[in-house]
Amino acid sequence: MGHSAETGPWAVGFEDWVNDEGADARREHFDRIVRGWKHAGMFPECLGGWRDEFYTIYGPPPPPSPEGDDNPLATGSNEAFRMERSACALFGFATFGVHCTAYVEEEGEPLKLWVPRRSATKPTWPSMLDNTVAGGITAGDSPRMSIIRECAEEASLSPAFVASRIKQAGVLTYHYRTAAGFLQPEVQYVYDLRLPAPGSADAAEGTQPSTNPADGEVESFELLSLDETVRRMCDGEFKPNCALVLIDFFMRHGLLTCESDTRFLEIAARLRKPLGLPGPA
Amino acid sequence: MGHSAETGPWAVGFEDWVNDEGADARREHFDRIVRGWKHAGMFPECLGGWRDEFYTIYGPPPPPSPEGDDNPLATGSNEAFRMERSACALFGFATFGVHCTAYVEEEGEPLKLWVPRRSATKPTWPSMLDNTVAGGITAGDSPRMSIIRECAEEASLSPAFVASRIKQAGVLTYHYRTAAGFLQPEVQYVYDLRLPAPGSADAAEGTQPSTNPADGEVESFELLSLDETVRRMCDGEFKPNCALVLIDFFMRHGLLTCESDTRFLEIAARLRKPLGLPGPA
Repeated sequence: MGHSAETGPWAVGFEDWVNDEGADARREHFDRIVRGWKHAGMFPECLGGWRDEFYTIYGPPPPPSPEGDDNPLATGSNEAFRMERSACALFGFATFGVHCTAYVEEEGEPLKLWVPRRSATKPTWPSMLDNTVAGGITAGDSPRMSIIRECAEEASLSPAFVASRIKQAGVLTYHYRTAAGFLQPEVQYVYDLRLPAPGSADAAEGTQPSTNPADGEVESFELLSLDETVRRMCDGEFKPNCALVLIDFFMRHGLLTCESDTRFLEIAARLRKPLGLPGPA
Repeated sequence: MGHSAETGPWAVGFEDWVNDEGADARREHFDRIVRGWKHAGMFPECLGGWRDEFYTIYGPPPPPSPEGDDNPLATGSNEAFRMERSACALFGFATFGVHCTAYVEEEGEPLKLWVPRRSATKPTWPSMLDNTVAGGITAGDSPRMSIIRECAEEASLSPAFVASRIKQAGVLTYHYRTAAGFLQPEVQYVYDLRLPAPGSADAAEGTQPSTNPADGEVESFELLSLDETVRRMCDGEFKPNCALVLIDFFMRHGLLTCESDTRFLEIAARLRKPLGLPGPA
């Protein structure tokens, strides 16, 4: 890496000989640097959680096609390279994830939320409360593929059932600040999944969250009332970014309104902070 | 008005003798200025649509209470003054409105949307398509009071029925640019209202949108499929800010996803543009 006359002294870029080799070469060079740091014991607060999982780092959106018939729905053409998940925060690269809120809402009954407790052995945020299902998007996966697979792995929900019911409901963007002070820009695609009430006629196998011993990420699931969920949020029992996802859910479902909290406008804006970084295009 | 050493040359403020008189005095002084402009035929593109309706203009949020028991849920304490609705764009003051999307979504059936056509005699955007119910928030009203009243006035929906069913679903912020080039910052609280299907057992009087001859704002209501609604949006048949509200509805209901449009992230951010202006606090 270096800085050139073209990018200016305020930007760091690849040297041309690396850049010209393409996305795979960029990944390899970054990987060698980051593995070296890990081997030397540097940045343990990030690299200590090494995942052996690649995330996609995006570059600028592709230019419009020269024919002029620019298809805005063409996807995946601006992957710059891939990077080990735990290293992304060191560079301030945006990472992308999926969070799903599963809930039960029967006619005339108050809404309830499926809330898992993270396994005590997880390297990050052990034993804290979480969104029903959540995960990072591994390079090469689509958000929808990711959330359907995570629903099966973490909550034993049937992929066919989830695919027929789950709804994407927007996106949140924010900076997560690590304990060591690194700023990690995060993009979370949020999903809603309405489930049949436990014990109801529709509550077949694969439609109710349950722990998956083979996965081991979740210790238990509980169906909580709104009041109980909010109480635990206020008590700091939730992993922080999961509380954001719940707040957005409450705003979309009329459970947090401009009449119930005068910070409504500010909260809505802060849940979608402009990151100023490229995403999939 | 003038600029003082305190506010600096880049800000315009009230002279102290006006400011100290309070919100009613500020309203009166502004009203005299604006009525003078109207009388002189100035700014016809804004003041030609004079409404005889006051909007609230907000000032900075109130300081925390000296006792330290700052109640963030206390409301309405930062009204700076009120101003004739049609004059707000001249000053770039933020205006606040409510937009409701009424829809029908039966198990196993595709979602349909209730779409009105504006009356041909409306001073603004005559004969264009609109959100099911929409209106500005008159000074002194809450967003919820406003939307319930507009649902009755514009669409003949029963207030008790609407109050039991309607859900606030978030807020949109954007700048509307008038034909003359004035920038009008707008805040729209959005609501979802799921209605029983026409002809179904639950479709009692007051649960189906219908025109109100006493109101005269709407020419007709139609229940449109998603495809037909999108086609008419693309054809420019909708009042522009109403298309924004529909796009947000589509994003919240899984009808517009990051897989169906690569501009998903950008659209989500632009629907909630930071206005940098005070709101109710």
